[in-house]
Amino acid sequence: MKPTLAVDAMGGDHGPAILVPATIEFLVKNPDASVILTGDEDAITSHLPAESKQLQDRYSIVHCDQVVEMDEAPTRAMRNKKNSSMRVALDRVKAGDAQACISAGNTGALMAMARFVLKMLPGVDRPAIVQELPSMNGSTVMLDLGANSECRPEHLVQFAVMGSVLAEASGIKSPTVALLNIGSEEVKGNDLVRQAAEELRQSSINYYGYVEGNDIYEGTVDVVVCDGFVGNVALKTSEGIARMISQVMREEFSQELGSKVAALAATPVLNRIRARIDHRRYNGASLLGLRGTVIKSHGSADQVAFGYALQAGLQESSRHVPELIGEQVLALLQEHD
Amino acid sequence: MKPTLAVDAMGGDHGPAILVPATIEFLVKNPDASVILTGDEDAITSHLPAESKQLQDRYSIVHCDQVVEMDEAPTRAMRNKKNSSMRVALDRVKAGDAQACISAGNTGALMAMARFVLKMLPGVDRPAIVQELPSMNGSTVMLDLGANSECRPEHLVQFAVMGSVLAEASGIKSPTVALLNIGSEEVKGNDLVRQAAEELRQSSINYYGYVEGNDIYEGTVDVVVCDGFVGNVALKTSEGIARMISQVMREEFSQELGSKVAALAATPVLNRIRARIDHRRYNGASLLGLRGTVIKSHGSADQVAFGYALQAGLQESSRHVPELIGEQVLALLQEHD
Repeated sequence: MKPTLAVDAMGGDHGPAILVPATIEFLVKNPDASVILTGDEDAITSHLPAESKQLQDRYSIVHCDQVVEMDEAPTRAMRNKKNSSMRVALDRVKAGDAQACISAGNTGALMAMARFVLKMLPGVDRPAIVQELPSMNGSTVMLDLGANSECRPEHLVQFAVMGSVLAEASGIKSPTVALLNIGSEEVKGNDLVRQAAEELRQSSINYYGYVEGNDIYEGTVDVVVCDGFVGNVALKTSEGIARMISQVMREEFSQELGSKVAALAATPVLNRIRARIDHRRYNGASLLGLRGTVIKSHGSADQVAFGYALQAGLQESSRHVPELIGEQVLALLQEHD
Repeated sequence: MKPTLAVDAMGGDHGPAILVPATIEFLVKNPDASVILTGDEDAITSHLPAESKQLQDRYSIVHCDQVVEMDEAPTRAMRNKKNSSMRVALDRVKAGDAQACISAGNTGALMAMARFVLKMLPGVDRPAIVQELPSMNGSTVMLDLGANSECRPEHLVQFAVMGSVLAEASGIKSPTVALLNIGSEEVKGNDLVRQAAEELRQSSINYYGYVEGNDIYEGTVDVVVCDGFVGNVALKTSEGIARMISQVMREEFSQELGSKVAALAATPVLNRIRARIDHRRYNGASLLGLRGTVIKSHGSADQVAFGYALQAGLQESSRHVPELIGEQVLALLQEHD
């Protein structure tokens, strides 16, 4: 089946001005894919770039007269925004017209609406935000990155199952799964982590044990599990230091390489380095645990970054991750019986 | 008064082979400073470098026949290791012979022994690990970095006071203090953070509000406060990604700059960049909240890194941070009355 993505064209800090051109660029790059753009038809149409003319059979626009605001309370959005671009995009996935929903909108509202429209998989209590982060030897699947700021041990166990399935779907056999912890000798973590470790040791997951923050990027394990508060701080901290290092590189090179020869030689290398550590490449986090594929883009995503989120949606929809998670979670529940 | 540091010469992964030469190098660089080296006298003496000959009036060795192991339970160390290099170094501070203790040993044991020997300041429940981290516009004081993996709101408030005092002692007037939180729209943090925010808003601290992980390195505020679990993960994650970026730089430059000219031009710049992002420069975290100055070095510190920890001890002992914290915490307690 040729994949179709439902794209919330109104979300994020920049709205259709960024999201629509990014979507058309995505269609150019992926000749098998189609998209459904949801949102204000006039706004969407006015931002269609010239190359969209040749692609008219691969995109459709579903007009919606509502938008979920970035700071709107999720419960309000749920009640009052039934014809919003976000809600209608999710409805298209539910109806089977699209295999994934991609939105750069309000995270809390997206989670609440996705739970309501698509429903959770049996045995999964809460959705988790997951991303593949770069590591020294490939990539690391990390979750939860901010959906759940307070967790119980069983939630971490469910995250471990979901992360393991996602890593396996991307080609890793029997992926190693670890709990993120702190390294201080006295206090090996808190009750949450210790209790989750107890349960994971007895599960069929390939449980590695504890890892520390540095292990995320050192690629010590395939999957790193933590609660959403810790995960979100780790992710944002990473973005912050990467940006600072980019600035340091710029400063030091602009100081030294007044010499034109050296500057010319170094520029392409610096650009490649910046591209490799550019967090836009890793834009597009999945909401796992739902009966459908939902990808959350950074609200501040530019055209390049949103393009990566669309690619993530395309890739994940082809991997049938929700179905696989459903099977694994059921198997885990049966182990406990 | 000329400052004297008590140096636990046996701690860390490398012991006296690294710590003793680093200490002698520190004395060469700081002609006003003296040190007391605690540990196995033969081991210390055998690692004294040639230049120590001219410095014999500025160091002394206190022989101790015990060592706290890196994985030893703090309670065991407390009970059984009264003549350990760590304990005796703390005793020298308590006795007033030294103004700071520096150790690369077991963090949990150092904390427990420091609490027992030096005692907490009145009004402070727990010590916190604090460090000045580099930021885009200077540096950020961050705590707790791993001493307390489970905190109550009043602990975060105490950390805020201590961080504020430390920033003020380093020359910042009325430093801004923020709580580390997550940016998701729905869940602005957990109960811990929300309750601490409530208390800080009513205090005399220059409270900024919430910041996210990226703000640590963007220098949004002077002091970032969090519990020790979150802080430790953020710190270690930063080290991990910085190391990965260094590797990316090495790979990309070694690929491109086969051309000798460009490689020669870029090498000093790359070395400066690596030096600026080298986490060894930020080695030496303070244990705040005690009636004395204690500096914890990374266990894996090499000679360069341990040198920075010694410098941190020298600097902090000159700033009378414990006395200043004591005054501020008392003032805060009186506000509440």
